[in-house]
Amino acid sequence: MSEPMNETKLENNSTEAKECCYEKVEVKPNTLLYPVPALLVSSGTADGRTNIMTAGWTGTICTVPPMVYVSIRPSRVSYDMIKESGEFVLNLNTEKLAAAADQCGVISARECPDKWELTGLTRGKAAHLDYAPIIMESPLNIECKLKQIIPLGSHDMFIGEVVGIDASKEYKGESKFIHLEEAGLIAYSCAKTENDIPVGSYVKLGETIGRYGFTAKKDIRTH
Amino acid sequence: MSEPMNETKLENNSTEAKECCYEKVEVKPNTLLYPVPALLVSSGTADGRTNIMTAGWTGTICTVPPMVYVSIRPSRVSYDMIKESGEFVLNLNTEKLAAAADQCGVISARECPDKWELTGLTRGKAAHLDYAPIIMESPLNIECKLKQIIPLGSHDMFIGEVVGIDASKEYKGESKFIHLEEAGLIAYSCAKTENDIPVGSYVKLGETIGRYGFTAKKDIRTH
Repeated sequence: MSEPMNETKLENNSTEAKECCYEKVEVKPNTLLYPVPALLVSSGTADGRTNIMTAGWTGTICTVPPMVYVSIRPSRVSYDMIKESGEFVLNLNTEKLAAAADQCGVISARECPDKWELTGLTRGKAAHLDYAPIIMESPLNIECKLKQIIPLGSHDMFIGEVVGIDASKEYKGESKFIHLEEAGLIAYSCAKTENDIPVGSYVKLGETIGRYGFTAKKDIRTH
Repeated sequence: MSEPMNETKLENNSTEAKECCYEKVEVKPNTLLYPVPALLVSSGTADGRTNIMTAGWTGTICTVPPMVYVSIRPSRVSYDMIKESGEFVLNLNTEKLAAAADQCGVISARECPDKWELTGLTRGKAAHLDYAPIIMESPLNIECKLKQIIPLGSHDMFIGEVVGIDASKEYKGESKFIHLEEAGLIAYSCAKTENDIPVGSYVKLGETIGRYGFTAKKDIRTH
């Protein structure tokens, strides 16, 4: 068990709470980094096939240039589509799209080749890509060109550079502003583990605690 | 502007809403993938220096073996610490730790070398690492060994393999179960952009929509 190395100086914390948080127990190495995104990844090929998969192993990896990743099992249909076409779109996920995202997460394109039919989602033409479509119902579509594939183990990491972004007009009423807080974005978090296996859930975002830099009481926007 | 390529089949959606979501406007490529994690990254060196930084560009990249990444600007003090020691810890973030996380995000170790003194957080010994400490107040500490650094641009991506996990006992009452839903985990999301610059905020997790596989009405745990 780990022991504290210095005395705590946290305020507003009862002695009982302090004692409690100091007791640590070891857990088997596992995927317990939460919350993560729960995005819809759309892809396509030159012969007109398209697919949607859901991904939690995705995120931003670089600010300038804006770069993202999505990790995909080689057995997935989307794996080959993205590798062949060199393109993918990360579509932000919302409360309204959660059921469609879950369907795309648990049902393989091998069982159900038409995810659009399955989910009722609508394909749109990406502004900067040739084959991968955007999902019209998503509030924000991040169009990416594949830069590199890094094999890791169960998953390979697809690194992409953001080449275009499409925002639904309802969240971008006036130039230079996007109101994503109104889009009902969701995350994916692990509620608990059962027999050492994490059980994940789609969760709504709740109350805002503060914007970046709130403790400095100044407007900071670069991070 | 993008146009829909097929007719929508989404139910429970008014015609007005459908029309609205079909209107897309282009946004300059930027870091608009949200929500993301907002983790506390702890590191240390052989001569006893330690640091805490806050990271949103972090996530899981592989399930087997469990692997994670954190992207860091080369100018950061943590960058050199992790590169030298080959170790880092990703500490999950909570509502109670949000202010400390914000301080570690906006104040450089060059200005304030003792983040523990600054935040009141408590160092603990990692079970499987030599130099990087864990943060005792975090409900879950993911101990990582550095495997690779990938230069990307403003940020370099540090890839780590999870070698140990420490859970606060209060969230792991009985063996094999972790109740992270009680930990008050938070995410980092972009409320809006101002002059094309995303403004991020720390947000609480809200209501759970459903667990992975909820649309399939069966218990699915592997993803």
